[in-house]
Amino acid sequence: MEKDVDLLKKANIYYDGRVTSRNYTDKNGVVKSLGIMLPGEYIFNTKAAEKMEIISGKLEVLLSGMESNWETFSMGSEFEVPANSSFEVKVDEITDYCCTYL
Amino acid sequence: MEKDVDLLKKANIYYDGRVTSRNYTDKNGVVKSLGIMLPGEYIFNTKAAEKMEIISGKLEVLLSGMESNWETFSMGSEFEVPANSSFEVKVDEITDYCCTYL
Repeated sequence: MEKDVDLLKKANIYYDGRVTSRNYTDKNGVVKSLGIMLPGEYIFNTKAAEKMEIISGKLEVLLSGMESNWETFSMGSEFEVPANSSFEVKVDEITDYCCTYL
Repeated sequence: MEKDVDLLKKANIYYDGRVTSRNYTDKNGVVKSLGIMLPGEYIFNTKAAEKMEIISGKLEVLLSGMESNWETFSMGSEFEVPANSSFEVKVDEITDYCCTYL
């Protein structure tokens, strides 16, 4: 449970609703979103850097512009994405996540 | 924006993720959830009575056990469902909603 947050009621809806999220600001003023990704392949662009925590589910991630490989993340793991970049995901199982804008 | 709420991070996931929601408690102690329904047909059971506010989207609703007909709801409209009952929905357009447990 996150206590004392300011929650925006309206959802963000992407990819025909296969990716959705809601924004909130925690009690320390940090902007975050909680979201769900259904199985599929997606590309996201960042403005701020992001920390992605996987609450449940399983996905593979490829960060762009780096000599990186696809990495798999599941419940309890997290990854960071640089500002002004993009990342590809392949969602293997319905993924519930928390994104913190850094 | 709903200020000073306690937000449960883990999502509720139904119907293979085509219906998802997150629970929170508002600053007056009222329990609510914010959710998304993707197009499809679903049945939900209630324990507490519920007020459903449609933030965006469009769906048809049939309350059970009443001499009622299918009724259409869209952005800005709301309906109430009695406790210990059920309702059927046909989601025509991705529906973003807020449910208040009465």
